[in-house]
Amino acid sequence: MHPTPELVSLDAIRTAHTRIRPHVVRTPLVPFPLEGVWLKPESLQPTGAFKLRGAFNALLGLTPEERARGVVAHSSGNHAQAVAYAAQQLGIPAVIVMPENAPRLKLHMTRAFGAEVVIVGPASEDRARTAEALGAERGLTPVPPYDDARIIAGAGTVGLEILEDLADVRTVLVPVSGGGLISGVAAAIKQQRPDVRIIGVEPEFAADARDSLRSGTLVTYTAEQVGQTLADGLRVQHLGTLNWAHIRAFVDDIVTVSETELRRAARESALRARLVTEPSGAVSVAAALYHREQLGETGPLVAVLSGGNLDPDLLVQLLTEDHA
Amino acid sequence: MHPTPELVSLDAIRTAHTRIRPHVVRTPLVPFPLEGVWLKPESLQPTGAFKLRGAFNALLGLTPEERARGVVAHSSGNHAQAVAYAAQQLGIPAVIVMPENAPRLKLHMTRAFGAEVVIVGPASEDRARTAEALGAERGLTPVPPYDDARIIAGAGTVGLEILEDLADVRTVLVPVSGGGLISGVAAAIKQQRPDVRIIGVEPEFAADARDSLRSGTLVTYTAEQVGQTLADGLRVQHLGTLNWAHIRAFVDDIVTVSETELRRAARESALRARLVTEPSGAVSVAAALYHREQLGETGPLVAVLSGGNLDPDLLVQLLTEDHA
Repeated sequence: MHPTPELVSLDAIRTAHTRIRPHVVRTPLVPFPLEGVWLKPESLQPTGAFKLRGAFNALLGLTPEERARGVVAHSSGNHAQAVAYAAQQLGIPAVIVMPENAPRLKLHMTRAFGAEVVIVGPASEDRARTAEALGAERGLTPVPPYDDARIIAGAGTVGLEILEDLADVRTVLVPVSGGGLISGVAAAIKQQRPDVRIIGVEPEFAADARDSLRSGTLVTYTAEQVGQTLADGLRVQHLGTLNWAHIRAFVDDIVTVSETELRRAARESALRARLVTEPSGAVSVAAALYHREQLGETGPLVAVLSGGNLDPDLLVQLLTEDHA
Repeated sequence: MHPTPELVSLDAIRTAHTRIRPHVVRTPLVPFPLEGVWLKPESLQPTGAFKLRGAFNALLGLTPEERARGVVAHSSGNHAQAVAYAAQQLGIPAVIVMPENAPRLKLHMTRAFGAEVVIVGPASEDRARTAEALGAERGLTPVPPYDDARIIAGAGTVGLEILEDLADVRTVLVPVSGGGLISGVAAAIKQQRPDVRIIGVEPEFAADARDSLRSGTLVTYTAEQVGQTLADGLRVQHLGTLNWAHIRAFVDDIVTVSETELRRAARESALRARLVTEPSGAVSVAAALYHREQLGETGPLVAVLSGGNLDPDLLVQLLTEDHA
């Protein structure tokens, strides 16, 4: 038996908010016209995703000695850019271990933000091992992507802002991957307003968190299963340990959306809310637009749009494909 | 000789801000990565453009009797949607006169926001005449698109928010059409911070405001001239009277961008700042990205991204075309 991990407190999230405020965009709630839905567009962060909040919170909490030695992170996606950008802004050296098959744009941006990029093979164990070795060898502090109290507290600032802007919110929809975002948002909201419902959203192909919540045991999907969704940011095979504890404590339900729904939601977000949305960021919008009955709610609904980084060709494909 | 019209005061803009705040999105400044430029994305308003600020300010200033009788506006574009939406939110009847060749989406959305739409011929005089006749016949209060102190004060709230968010701003770039947006932004900023430079931006094909400012006389372009720009929101042939007075008093310069530049800027805004931008809204971004030397500035630069309503086919075209 593992001991129950300590949950992130409201105080820790409030401290994170004060700390990161000068460095991140205070995203507004944007109404989705005619739908009675509000979007929280974290795609407007300078690196295009909510990950920047956790990265700044982790880096701002380092000692002067740790800052001087630098940080190391491994990621194929938005966490890489977030750590690189935050480190550059704070003058901290950063090493990012990325797989050779990472999207070219994300490699390019991570380097453009001044990080030293170390390329390894495509397996995620390669990345973790290399990052650990580099950390030990060069005294770099690791910055994990989601299974970490500082990262969760940073993500939780999204929840604080939702309550600031829409006091009568009834339901908040949050994409779920490793669980960093929903852990923070749920902790921020439930510890103030237990009446607000927090609903996670996953693609049908990567419904490990839904299965975990419903069975009460941490469920792992295979890489082949999660590889089937277009939502590349949600292909993590199971929740982090600390994230799983937060989800059990604070999340009301987890629902799934189809690939067609998440593709349509990305298109609709661009055309009707003028927000470029990556497939992973669109799952919560898809649940808001196409699963209202299942959600059983009539009150104000917020969908966290977690990111907007996607390949131009994919954006064009999503805008032009026919779902009729 | 016309008497000099009275300029909109800072007090009027602050009053407008308090009044419209519960009804409009408090847009953030979004950094354009790696460029040292901030965008003010008015595309995130529920009707996709800054016009909503002026419309709410005008409608909220009506007497109970005027509210009960209703309002009339004429527009082929974003002003129609803004008046329709604001009127619906406030429970005010609205009649919008639109030309038969208005974009289908804009007709659809104006009706969806509950307005009575009256269709007339394509000439702008037809619209004005019909709106005036309907106003007289039914006692409707007209809501003009830009040449109006309440509309200018509403638009000016964009300027207040820029100073709130970025106290050390040096230069603000604003698209110019009839002049409502730049009149308000310039009045809001210059009456507090005369050191901040306010620069208007026009397409080369519709540079009537630049020619007016440089010659000191109100210049009119032909419909054929302005019809050549893709920026359909900037095809007004000359500035409004009150707008011209504000521009003479408060605007430092007006620069122009090419069609290629505004098309590229719309693409870059979508891909790098994740903001869907209409061609009219992209001219200020184009000036920020491609005319930095001409602007002669090194300090913090804000480009007001005025709107994000465009046809899906045009968005795809902008995303796919090659400017190499």
